[in-house]
Amino acid sequence: MRFSIITLFPEALEPYLRSSMMWKATEKGIVDFELINLRDFGLGPHKSVDDTPYGGGDGMLLRCEPVFSAIESVKTENSKVLLPTPVGQVWNQQLARTFASEDKHYIILCPHYEGYDERILTLVDHKISLGNFILTGGELPALVVVDSIVRLLPGVLGGETSAEIESFSNGNNLEYPQYTKPADFRGLKVPDVLLSGHHENIAKWRASHSGTATEN
Amino acid sequence: MRFSIITLFPEALEPYLRSSMMWKATEKGIVDFELINLRDFGLGPHKSVDDTPYGGGDGMLLRCEPVFSAIESVKTENSKVLLPTPVGQVWNQQLARTFASEDKHYIILCPHYEGYDERILTLVDHKISLGNFILTGGELPALVVVDSIVRLLPGVLGGETSAEIESFSNGNNLEYPQYTKPADFRGLKVPDVLLSGHHENIAKWRASHSGTATEN
Repeated sequence: MRFSIITLFPEALEPYLRSSMMWKATEKGIVDFELINLRDFGLGPHKSVDDTPYGGGDGMLLRCEPVFSAIESVKTENSKVLLPTPVGQVWNQQLARTFASEDKHYIILCPHYEGYDERILTLVDHKISLGNFILTGGELPALVVVDSIVRLLPGVLGGETSAEIESFSNGNNLEYPQYTKPADFRGLKVPDVLLSGHHENIAKWRASHSGTATEN
Repeated sequence: MRFSIITLFPEALEPYLRSSMMWKATEKGIVDFELINLRDFGLGPHKSVDDTPYGGGDGMLLRCEPVFSAIESVKTENSKVLLPTPVGQVWNQQLARTFASEDKHYIILCPHYEGYDERILTLVDHKISLGNFILTGGELPALVVVDSIVRLLPGVLGGETSAEIESFSNGNNLEYPQYTKPADFRGLKVPDVLLSGHHENIAKWRASHSGTATEN
C-alpha cells in the first residue's frame, strides 16, 4: 500500500511516519509513504499556494493550480484522493477496514488556511472528517487516517490477532478493564479473580465488565 | 496555557508542535509545550514501562509506576490530566471551546501498546476519544486536542475573527463553498454571483449554499 501526503508542512509529519508502527510497516515493505510539499507547486517567485476568496471574506483559500499540479504529479489509475474536511464522512473503524482491504495508492491532500477553492473537489474521491471540531489543517486527520489503516494491514502489528481483539474491532463493544503488575500499587489492588488463574471466572468477569459504546 | 504531553515518542510529536500555528502561539508566549518521555520513568535497567495483563490476553499494558511518576513530576494544583482512550467522551468543538476558556495546565497521557492498567484512571480528570476508530497510540489524539484548543486562544490566529466564522463554530452549520482566483480554471468557473460585487446577492447565495451537519 502506498500513501502520498500532500502538505505545506512535510517536516511536521515525517517524524511521525518514521516512528513506531509506521516505521516498522515501512521497513517490512508493507507500506510506502511519500510526503509531497505543496509549496513546490506554488505559483510565481514566492511559490504562492493561496489567495483571497471571491465575494469577500476573511482568510485565504488554497488555489486550484498548485493542488491540481501536486495531485497530478503522483496520480495513477490505482490512486484514490482523500480530502480531510469538516464536511466529509466521519471516519470510523469500518471505513478503516474497508480502506485497508483495498490495495490502493491513497493520495491525501491536507488543506490549510481557511479552506480551499471548491473546484478542488472535482479531484477528490473521498471527503473525510474526524468529527465535529476544527483543526488548523488536514495534517492530523491525514495521520489519523493513515495510522488507523496501516495497523490493520497483515503483518504490521506484532501479535497478528491484536488488531482484531481491540476495542471497536467488533462493532462498538469496548474492552474490559485490564491490569498488569504490581498486584498492589499504593493500595490500589487488582481484582482477585484476575489473579486466580480460574479461566472461566476470568472470562465471566471480563464479559460483565466490558463497556458498550463510546460516551457521547 | 501550558501543555505537558507524556509519551513514548516525543521525537514524533515535537516537529508538529514546532510548526505553523503551534509554533507561532509558542513564540507569542500564549502557550507553552512540554514533552515528557515516559521512558525516562521506566523501571529497571531497561526502563520498562509495560507488562503482560493479569488473567491472560494478548499484548502489553502500560504499568502504573512509570505513569504515576511521570504525571506527578509535573502535576500542580492547576493541572488537569487528559487521557485519549476509545472509552472517552467524544471530542467536539464545544469541548475545545470549554478547555480553551480555562487557564489550566493540561497534562495529556498518551497510551501505547494494547492499553493501560485500569488503576491509571485514578489520576485522570478527562477521558477523551476522537471517535469510533482505533489508533496505535494516544499521540495523534493528543495533538488533535492541543491543536483544536490552541487555535481558539486569543491572539493565536492571524485574523481575530477567523476562529469564529469557521465551520462548527456556531453549532453544526458548515461554511458555504468558497472560490479564489482564477475565475476560470480549465473550464471550471467561479459562480457569476461571487464575481458580481453585489453584496446582498452574494450573502443570499452563500446562505442558500451553506451545508448542514457533517455526513454520517
